[in-house]
Amino acid sequence: MGMTITEKIIAAHAGKDYVEPGELVTVKVDLAIANDITAPLAIKQLEKYGIDKVHDPNKIALVMDHFFPPKDILSAQQIKISRDFAKKMGIKNYFEGQDSGVMHTLLPEKGFVVPGDLVIGADSHTCTYGGIGAFSTGVGSTDIAYIWATGETWLRVPETMKFTFYGKPQKWVGGKDFVLTVIGKIGVDGALYKAMEYHGEAIKALDIDNRLTIANMAIEAGGKNAVIEADEKTIEWVRKRTNREFKIYKSDPDAKYCCEYEFDANKIEPVVACPNLPSNVKPVSEVAGTHIDQVFIGSCTNGRLSDLRIAAAILKGKKVHPEVRCIVIPASDQIYKQALHEGIIEILADAGCLISTSTCGPCLGGHMGILAEGEVCLSTSNRNFVGRMGHPKSQVYLSSPAVAAASAVLGRIAHPDEVAKYEDVETLITL
Amino acid sequence: MGMTITEKIIAAHAGKDYVEPGELVTVKVDLAIANDITAPLAIKQLEKYGIDKVHDPNKIALVMDHFFPPKDILSAQQIKISRDFAKKMGIKNYFEGQDSGVMHTLLPEKGFVVPGDLVIGADSHTCTYGGIGAFSTGVGSTDIAYIWATGETWLRVPETMKFTFYGKPQKWVGGKDFVLTVIGKIGVDGALYKAMEYHGEAIKALDIDNRLTIANMAIEAGGKNAVIEADEKTIEWVRKRTNREFKIYKSDPDAKYCCEYEFDANKIEPVVACPNLPSNVKPVSEVAGTHIDQVFIGSCTNGRLSDLRIAAAILKGKKVHPEVRCIVIPASDQIYKQALHEGIIEILADAGCLISTSTCGPCLGGHMGILAEGEVCLSTSNRNFVGRMGHPKSQVYLSSPAVAAASAVLGRIAHPDEVAKYEDVETLITL
Repeated sequence: MGMTITEKIIAAHAGKDYVEPGELVTVKVDLAIANDITAPLAIKQLEKYGIDKVHDPNKIALVMDHFFPPKDILSAQQIKISRDFAKKMGIKNYFEGQDSGVMHTLLPEKGFVVPGDLVIGADSHTCTYGGIGAFSTGVGSTDIAYIWATGETWLRVPETMKFTFYGKPQKWVGGKDFVLTVIGKIGVDGALYKAMEYHGEAIKALDIDNRLTIANMAIEAGGKNAVIEADEKTIEWVRKRTNREFKIYKSDPDAKYCCEYEFDANKIEPVVACPNLPSNVKPVSEVAGTHIDQVFIGSCTNGRLSDLRIAAAILKGKKVHPEVRCIVIPASDQIYKQALHEGIIEILADAGCLISTSTCGPCLGGHMGILAEGEVCLSTSNRNFVGRMGHPKSQVYLSSPAVAAASAVLGRIAHPDEVAKYEDVETLITL
Repeated sequence: MGMTITEKIIAAHAGKDYVEPGELVTVKVDLAIANDITAPLAIKQLEKYGIDKVHDPNKIALVMDHFFPPKDILSAQQIKISRDFAKKMGIKNYFEGQDSGVMHTLLPEKGFVVPGDLVIGADSHTCTYGGIGAFSTGVGSTDIAYIWATGETWLRVPETMKFTFYGKPQKWVGGKDFVLTVIGKIGVDGALYKAMEYHGEAIKALDIDNRLTIANMAIEAGGKNAVIEADEKTIEWVRKRTNREFKIYKSDPDAKYCCEYEFDANKIEPVVACPNLPSNVKPVSEVAGTHIDQVFIGSCTNGRLSDLRIAAAILKGKKVHPEVRCIVIPASDQIYKQALHEGIIEILADAGCLISTSTCGPCLGGHMGILAEGEVCLSTSNRNFVGRMGHPKSQVYLSSPAVAAASAVLGRIAHPDEVAKYEDVETLITL
């Protein structure tokens, strides 16, 4: 029996030729990561175990992204604990402040993750790296402490679901619309502990940023991980960032999938996940007109350069609605700098966007744009649970940056066609 | 007996020809302002009084600057209360988000304050507007509620202190060094309930930004207000911003001062206020070498365009020390946009600064750069009391943007000469 990409990566890291769904295996971990919320918990756990040395400091990365720059004394203390630990353990890949960013954007950008890697993170959106053909998933802080101590962890091999997107992505439609469409179809527990493997020419047509967006939201369907087979685009993207050797895994023709879904990309239009679940997905046309108070463009889901480019393409020469806070947070310092060099930041600022240094910020209701009672936000992030971005009586809609930017202009949820002609902005988008 | 500028402005607003120190008068208020912390308190007070109409909505300005973008649910609620009040009362000058900023930078920038105005604010740094020849001072929220209801307030006419700066500002030296030198000389209660009137060719040599910095810190010496006579520079600056009529008040030759201080600007060098008082002032040369973890360039004291220009002039082509968080927060959206257009933001970002949307932020320990135990910050803001920017065991030094930028590069308090040649950057500073 053949294997899927996920099974192959797990097998390779378990030192086995073959694994099958349901099997319990111990795997070597290429990179074990934590943030300013979870790292201090893992550090405390290590202390409890009486362990004062990590297995391999080069296989650890700590990124201070959730409450950065420190929003209060508590978050400042959490960061200090992590920084001191990194120094003590010789962990070079500690990121705080300059040259940093939102972890799941930063680490692939810096070439710390390559196709075929097995990455475990004390953060649920660790699944992002499936966008470049890695196996990656989130765990709790105790599990991370064990990996830091031993270099290993245990896994139950997940079953794999196959999602195939035929056809061609339509105008304004990107990875976010694809993945929301999937979650809308299968529900927030539709992929519980499953690997979500994406196929089809419409996926191949997407750039790496859009693929990372798709993988990023696997957890919103309950998935263990998502994975997109690395191709020429992936290789080019990764090679620009690192010289590390890597192996590309492909699913065998006779690999076993627990279920298969097919989508016709030609028919997928811009969509929005309505309150209060990422699976409450509707075409933008159905909810257009809904009043909004805030737009957030950023996060590990949609805070990358291509996201800012499309937002700038739509907002160029226009103004954000006077009663909307349009908060733009590039997901890494490098993205911010590149966006500055390309003139994107200037376009966004002139349109009235509020642009801040890289942080998860409002995505998790952390800081930098929290909602009051009754306020409504359209966000390019990944979750819209009750109270996710603030008051329990606030509401969050999720969308692509294109829909977010158009809505910011009109002060209500809007289809990008209402604000810009795709033909006019296409060249800007594909800069 | 002649009158000082402060006495003349108060007399004019009291409908009198003459007032003298110690006199209790009722004055008409040109502008009564509050922020996201104090406005909700004043609003509650008005409700308690049973008042549902303000005296004149055009003489009120509300600026959401302290915890903006909302750092948590509480601050989001405070902003919502203020926004709803502004709508209900017809207050057009409500600022939140785009086209907003830090109140004391924003209001003069928008031409809402002109020479001769009498401005009362529910914020201690309301004294800033003395930099353009206005009388302005801070009060509590209850007093602001009374002004909103009646358009008036009472004042005791302060005695006036005279500070004269002879000579020429030396290289790297600006308003911040002048005012810190004054506070170092007279102490944090050295001007208690007094008007601080500034004179001399070295003051006249300063641009308006630097004059606003001097007036801004009157409260750090306990002053009721500060005032600098409006001159040609002031008129030009104000005329670019508003067509409102205004009257320039000058102190009479026989005006009475309670005391006079003279400074030789030729001898003033860059200074730093050491923990934990703004009066603990030392020449940079004496404290050079002190380790720092964070630099903050921003606030109503030093977050204006000329401040960013000097920081960029020093940081151009250099890198912030890898272990320093250098947080730059332009004090208004307009300043940020102008800095973008001039390429200043790009210079700062390339140097490794973290640049965020306008907010008071870390200055008051609000958010966006709070200190952990033992951390040390060099800040261009106005106060360095125990715990001002975070943990009670953190420390804050105050300086000009020039000293802050140089120190950011070296990771320790440094004289700008250590990092840049003044002759090389002079043209950049005076862009």
